[in-house]
Amino acid sequence: MEFEAQVEVTHLPGVLDPQGTTVERALPALGFTNVSHVRIGKSIRLVVDAPDAATARTQVEEMCNRILANPVIEAFTVTVHERERA
Amino acid sequence: MEFEAQVEVTHLPGVLDPQGTTVERALPALGFTNVSHVRIGKSIRLVVDAPDAATARTQVEEMCNRILANPVIEAFTVTVHERERA
Repeated sequence: MEFEAQVEVTHLPGVLDPQGTTVERALPALGFTNVSHVRIGKSIRLVVDAPDAATARTQVEEMCNRILANPVIEAFTVTVHERERA
Repeated sequence: MEFEAQVEVTHLPGVLDPQGTTVERALPALGFTNVSHVRIGKSIRLVVDAPDAATARTQVEEMCNRILANPVIEAFTVTVHERERA
Protein backbone atom coordinates (compact mmCIF):
# COMPACT_ATOMS: atom_id res chain seq x y z
CA MET A 1 0.00 0.00 0.00
CA GLU A 2 1.29 3.43 -0.83
CA PHE A 3 1.26 6.28 1.63
CA GLU A 4 1.96 9.92 0.98
CA ALA A 5 3.99 11.59 3.72
CA GLN A 6 4.46 15.28 4.30
CA VAL A 7 7.31 16.36 6.54
CA GLU A 8 7.72 19.89 7.85
CA VAL A 9 11.24 20.59 9.04
CA THR A 10 11.59 23.70 11.21
CA HIS A 11 14.43 25.26 13.17
CA LEU A 12 14.39 24.50 16.88
CA PRO A 13 13.52 27.52 19.03
CA GLY A 14 16.65 29.60 19.60
CA VAL A 15 18.36 28.47 16.42
CA LEU A 16 19.13 31.35 14.07
CA ASP A 17 17.16 31.47 10.83
CA PRO A 18 19.02 33.89 8.52
CA GLN A 19 16.68 33.21 5.58
CA GLY A 20 13.63 34.10 7.68
CA THR A 21 15.35 37.18 9.08
CA THR A 22 16.24 38.40 5.59
CA VAL A 23 12.66 38.01 4.36
CA GLU A 24 11.30 39.72 7.47
CA ARG A 25 13.63 42.68 6.89
CA ALA A 26 12.63 42.91 3.23
CA LEU A 27 8.85 42.85 3.75
CA PRO A 28 8.39 46.46 5.02
CA ALA A 29 9.99 47.80 1.83
CA LEU A 30 7.25 46.00 -0.10
CA GLY A 31 4.55 47.58 2.03
CA PHE A 32 4.01 44.72 4.47
CA THR A 33 4.58 46.39 7.82
CA ASN A 34 2.33 44.06 9.81
CA VAL A 35 4.36 40.85 9.58
CA SER A 36 6.56 39.28 12.23
CA HIS A 37 8.00 35.92 13.34
CA VAL A 38 9.02 34.82 9.84
CA ARG A 39 10.60 31.37 9.96
CA ILE A 40 11.59 29.44 6.88
CA GLY A 41 11.96 25.68 6.96
CA LYS A 42 11.65 22.76 4.58
CA SER A 43 8.61 20.91 3.36
CA ILE A 44 9.29 17.39 2.09
CA ARG A 45 6.77 15.18 0.34
CA LEU A 46 7.40 11.57 -0.48
CA VAL A 47 5.64 8.30 -1.20
CA VAL A 48 6.32 5.23 0.98
CA ASP A 49 5.29 1.69 0.16
CA ALA A 50 4.37 0.11 3.51
CA PRO A 51 1.86 -2.41 4.88
CA ASP A 52 0.07 0.17 7.04
CA ALA A 53 0.11 3.84 8.02
CA ALA A 54 1.88 3.26 11.36
CA THR A 55 4.79 1.49 9.66
CA ALA A 56 4.99 4.23 7.03
CA ARG A 57 5.11 6.89 9.74
CA THR A 58 7.83 5.08 11.71
CA GLN A 59 9.94 4.76 8.57
CA VAL A 60 9.53 8.42 7.67
CA GLU A 61 10.48 9.46 11.22
CA GLU A 62 13.62 7.33 10.94
CA MET A 63 14.41 8.98 7.58
CA CYS A 64 13.98 12.40 9.23
CA ASN A 65 16.43 11.53 11.98
CA ARG A 66 18.98 10.09 9.56
CA ILE A 67 18.84 12.22 6.42
CA LEU A 68 15.90 14.60 6.03
CA ALA A 69 16.50 16.73 9.13
CA ASN A 70 19.31 17.53 11.52
CA PRO A 71 17.86 16.71 14.97
CA VAL A 72 20.51 18.85 16.68
CA ILE A 73 19.07 22.08 15.26
CA GLU A 74 15.81 21.08 13.61
CA ALA A 75 12.42 19.73 14.61
CA PHE A 76 10.11 17.85 12.27
CA THR A 77 6.45 16.91 12.07
CA VAL A 78 5.27 14.02 9.94
CA THR A 79 1.81 13.66 8.39
CA VAL A 80 0.93 10.40 6.64
CA HIS A 81 -2.15 9.58 4.61
CA GLU A 82 -3.06 6.90 2.12
CA ARG A 83 -2.18 7.78 -1.44
CA GLU A 84 -5.06 8.40 -3.79
CA ARG A 85 -4.79 6.34 -6.94
CA ALA A 86 -5.10 8.24 -10.20
CA MET B 1 -5.80 40.58 15.58
CA GLU B 2 -2.86 38.30 14.96
CA PHE B 3 -3.01 35.41 12.54
CA GLU B 4 -0.48 32.67 12.07
CA ALA B 5 0.07 31.70 8.45
CA GLN B 6 1.75 28.61 7.13
CA VAL B 7 2.88 28.62 3.53
CA GLU B 8 4.02 25.52 1.69
CA VAL B 9 6.01 26.33 -1.44
CA THR B 10 6.42 23.44 -3.86
CA HIS B 11 7.91 23.07 -7.32
CA LEU B 12 5.38 23.11 -10.14
CA PRO B 13 4.95 19.73 -11.85
CA GLY B 14 7.67 19.25 -14.44
CA VAL B 15 10.14 21.56 -12.72
CA LEU B 16 13.36 19.77 -11.76
CA ASP B 17 13.98 19.28 -8.04
CA PRO B 18 17.68 18.41 -7.66
CA GLN B 19 17.50 18.39 -3.86
CA GLY B 20 14.65 15.86 -3.90
CA THR B 21 16.40 13.73 -6.51
CA THR B 22 19.58 13.65 -4.44
CA VAL B 23 17.72 12.54 -1.32
CA GLU B 24 15.79 9.92 -3.28
CA ARG B 25 19.04 8.50 -4.65
CA ALA B 26 20.62 8.43 -1.19
CA LEU B 27 17.77 6.65 0.61
CA PRO B 28 18.37 3.09 -0.72
CA ALA B 29 21.91 3.16 0.67
CA LEU B 30 20.36 3.79 4.10
CA GLY B 31 18.04 0.82 3.73
CA PHE B 32 14.95 2.67 2.53
CA THR B 33 14.16 0.94 -0.75
CA ASN B 34 10.41 1.62 -0.66
CA VAL B 35 10.44 5.39 -1.14
CA SER B 36 9.63 7.36 -4.29
CA HIS B 37 8.42 10.78 -5.46
CA VAL B 38 10.63 12.77 -3.07
CA ARG B 39 10.01 16.49 -3.55
CA ILE B 40 11.59 19.13 -1.34
CA GLY B 41 10.05 22.57 -1.01
CA LYS B 42 9.88 25.35 1.54
CA SER B 43 7.70 25.76 4.57
CA ILE B 44 7.25 29.34 5.76
CA ARG B 45 5.56 30.37 8.97
CA LEU B 46 4.79 33.97 9.83
CA VAL B 47 2.51 36.12 11.94
CA VAL B 48 0.29 38.76 10.30
CA ASP B 49 -1.55 41.51 12.10
CA ALA B 50 -4.85 41.92 10.23
CA PRO B 51 -8.50 42.76 10.99
CA ASP B 52 -9.75 39.34 9.88
CA ALA B 53 -8.61 35.99 8.50
CA ALA B 54 -9.62 36.77 4.91
CA THR B 55 -7.49 39.93 4.85
CA ALA B 56 -4.58 38.05 6.41
CA ARG B 57 -4.83 35.33 3.75
CA THR B 58 -4.99 37.86 0.88
CA GLN B 59 -1.90 39.61 2.22
CA VAL B 60 0.04 36.37 2.59
CA GLU B 61 -0.90 35.33 -0.95
CA GLU B 62 0.39 38.68 -2.22
CA MET B 63 3.63 38.15 -0.27
CA CYS B 64 3.95 34.71 -1.87
CA ASN B 65 3.61 36.15 -5.35
CA ARG B 66 6.05 38.97 -4.67
CA ILE B 67 8.78 37.56 -2.43
CA LEU B 68 8.11 34.19 -0.78
CA ALA B 69 7.71 32.12 -3.94
CA ASN B 70 8.58 32.32 -7.61
CA PRO B 71 5.23 31.81 -9.39
CA VAL B 72 7.00 30.89 -12.64
CA ILE B 73 8.35 27.63 -11.21
CA GLU B 74 6.67 27.28 -7.82
CA ALA B 75 3.18 26.73 -6.44
CA PHE B 76 2.12 27.68 -2.93
CA THR B 77 -0.65 26.83 -0.49
CA VAL B 78 -1.55 29.17 2.36
CA THR B 79 -3.13 28.13 5.66
CA VAL B 80 -4.23 30.85 8.08
CA HIS B 81 -5.48 30.47 11.62
CA GLU B 82 -5.89 32.80 14.56
CA ARG B 83 -2.83 32.99 16.74
CA GLU B 84 -3.13 31.52 20.19
CA ARG B 85 -2.06 33.97 22.87
CA ALA B 86 0.52 32.68 25.30
